[in-house]
Amino acid sequence: MTSDILAYQAADLLAEPRLQVFSGRSALVTGGLGFIGSNLVHALNALGASVTVIDSLSDGQGGNRFNLQGIEDLIDIRLADINDEAAVAEAVRGRHYVFNLAASVSHLDSLDAPFRDLDTNVRGNLAVLEAVRRYAPEARVVYAGTRSQYGLIQTSPVTEEHPLLPTEVNSANKAAADLYHFAYHIAHGMATVSLRLTNTYGPRMLTAHWRQGFINWFVRTAVEGGVFKLYGDGSQVRDLVYVDDVVRAHLIAAVTPDVAGQAFNVGSGNPVSLLQIATQLIEIAGQGSIELVPFPDDARRIEIGDYVADTAKIDRILDWQPRISLRQGLERSVRYYQTYREHYW
Amino acid sequence: MTSDILAYQAADLLAEPRLQVFSGRSALVTGGLGFIGSNLVHALNALGASVTVIDSLSDGQGGNRFNLQGIEDLIDIRLADINDEAAVAEAVRGRHYVFNLAASVSHLDSLDAPFRDLDTNVRGNLAVLEAVRRYAPEARVVYAGTRSQYGLIQTSPVTEEHPLLPTEVNSANKAAADLYHFAYHIAHGMATVSLRLTNTYGPRMLTAHWRQGFINWFVRTAVEGGVFKLYGDGSQVRDLVYVDDVVRAHLIAAVTPDVAGQAFNVGSGNPVSLLQIATQLIEIAGQGSIELVPFPDDARRIEIGDYVADTAKIDRILDWQPRISLRQGLERSVRYYQTYREHYW
Repeated sequence: MTSDILAYQAADLLAEPRLQVFSGRSALVTGGLGFIGSNLVHALNALGASVTVIDSLSDGQGGNRFNLQGIEDLIDIRLADINDEAAVAEAVRGRHYVFNLAASVSHLDSLDAPFRDLDTNVRGNLAVLEAVRRYAPEARVVYAGTRSQYGLIQTSPVTEEHPLLPTEVNSANKAAADLYHFAYHIAHGMATVSLRLTNTYGPRMLTAHWRQGFINWFVRTAVEGGVFKLYGDGSQVRDLVYVDDVVRAHLIAAVTPDVAGQAFNVGSGNPVSLLQIATQLIEIAGQGSIELVPFPDDARRIEIGDYVADTAKIDRILDWQPRISLRQGLERSVRYYQTYREHYW
Repeated sequence: MTSDILAYQAADLLAEPRLQVFSGRSALVTGGLGFIGSNLVHALNALGASVTVIDSLSDGQGGNRFNLQGIEDLIDIRLADINDEAAVAEAVRGRHYVFNLAASVSHLDSLDAPFRDLDTNVRGNLAVLEAVRRYAPEARVVYAGTRSQYGLIQTSPVTEEHPLLPTEVNSANKAAADLYHFAYHIAHGMATVSLRLTNTYGPRMLTAHWRQGFINWFVRTAVEGGVFKLYGDGSQVRDLVYVDDVVRAHLIAAVTPDVAGQAFNVGSGNPVSLLQIATQLIEIAGQGSIELVPFPDDARRIEIGDYVADTAKIDRILDWQPRISLRQGLERSVRYYQTYREHYW
């Protein structure tokens, strides 16, 4: 089953001429045992890159050794925190590409433990950028930021010019690291690009708990035939993008010339309500039910409002478009976790 | 001479009805031995507030015991870093007002020592906000941000909606702390306000070295009758504001109802070139000369372009306008350092 998914991805990537430059090149993926990171490692490996991973396998985060199952012997995996400056320096040295995906991704956890979130999301990214400046100044650097940096939505769809109004520390920290990537381009001439990802879903996502967003928990609920608890009337709008499309965006951002210092939204541009997502998952899994519950106070306060990405910029400049429909993506996700659930929860 | 300046400021502040609410109230000023912080402490003391100061007196930063000369016995001065969570918690407990002015302010230093800048400007502000959340959740919090958060100027004059494009880590860190203040308002309902200060000048400014911007060094050069070294042709435009006006903006922001979560530019709105400033200082001091030199590489890379603040928002919502003209402010500055130079360099 994993091999099905890998075979699809590899064929798709190997058919895209501009991505063949990774062959024989060297890449570092921070957070490479995590959800998006591990999918990116699979892609880079399929494209013939030699790949190094730094991952701390922190408790409660998305790192999972099973995510690299089948290619673990081909990848240089280093268990270290990105705040470990010596380990980061060693891992960065000589790389052609650096993908910054290591992160703490829970908005709710950051309310209780803001300093821990700061250490990973701000200081950790600064450590990586400093290492690149010193040991691999020519490397192309891609940062995986988040739509939640925009915070309270003022205008929709949300362009890259939308003000940064993060509603909690996690999103503020993700924004700070984004600003760092820009500043290192200006101050030190480094080739950094920032992506701002909307809700990403698919195989290899953490599903052990619900504190990292709703979509992983929804997929798990479908696989278990459980109850989807929606806040309010479930009409909150999100913009979901399948992980293979997000991986392609990272690859393209890394190889496209003349985009240093720029930021790009990555999303489908297609609004969908939480109620619609739950309904589709129930259809796909053939089980599960929906319950509408009142908003908890903490979730209500940091709710950003309906989010739809404006993807005109990435379409125009990176010639990137999502390829996997929501229905296809949800089907693949359910199928993956039906097969491999024992490795994820 | 200090007493002249104090007497002026006190009379001015005591004449403003809305500022009389500070009488008998309790305020914390972080960085209260520094330039703007100490001027704010003088003002709060004149208005009858009981004032606590936290300052680390870090080497090379603006903290200077002489800045509170004359009132040092009336102020509760605590020598501690704002990263000292226990000291901050103790200092915050029970305060009605918290003014967050402790900062590292050198753009150039942050290029060489980005982690130190992070600790003070990001982690330190987070420590203060966490302490307020736990021990003084009703306090009004005012953050002293900076125009350099806007970074590369896209449109002029610069409004509060201008994108954040900081050109180096110091400005990115100041922006991150600004985002924190907003996030704590949204997530925890705290009454935070952010100010974004343009180049502030006046008495009690650090003049020991030139790494914190140009205006302090210009004033020192005038007092010493030295050579003003201007980069390029000296036509770079800045927006200078006198410290007494900046102090009034802090006080007003702290007492104005219904402005929590908002950001306000503080500036004169009057563009002036570096050449014009140097020329005025030479006239005032009756000495000094100008030399035009090529831009050093590091300064050129992080040069943001001409800056003029759009101050329509602070004018409208806080009813704040600058009162001290550039000529008056420069005269007072030169006079102050002619008298007290031995305490500053």
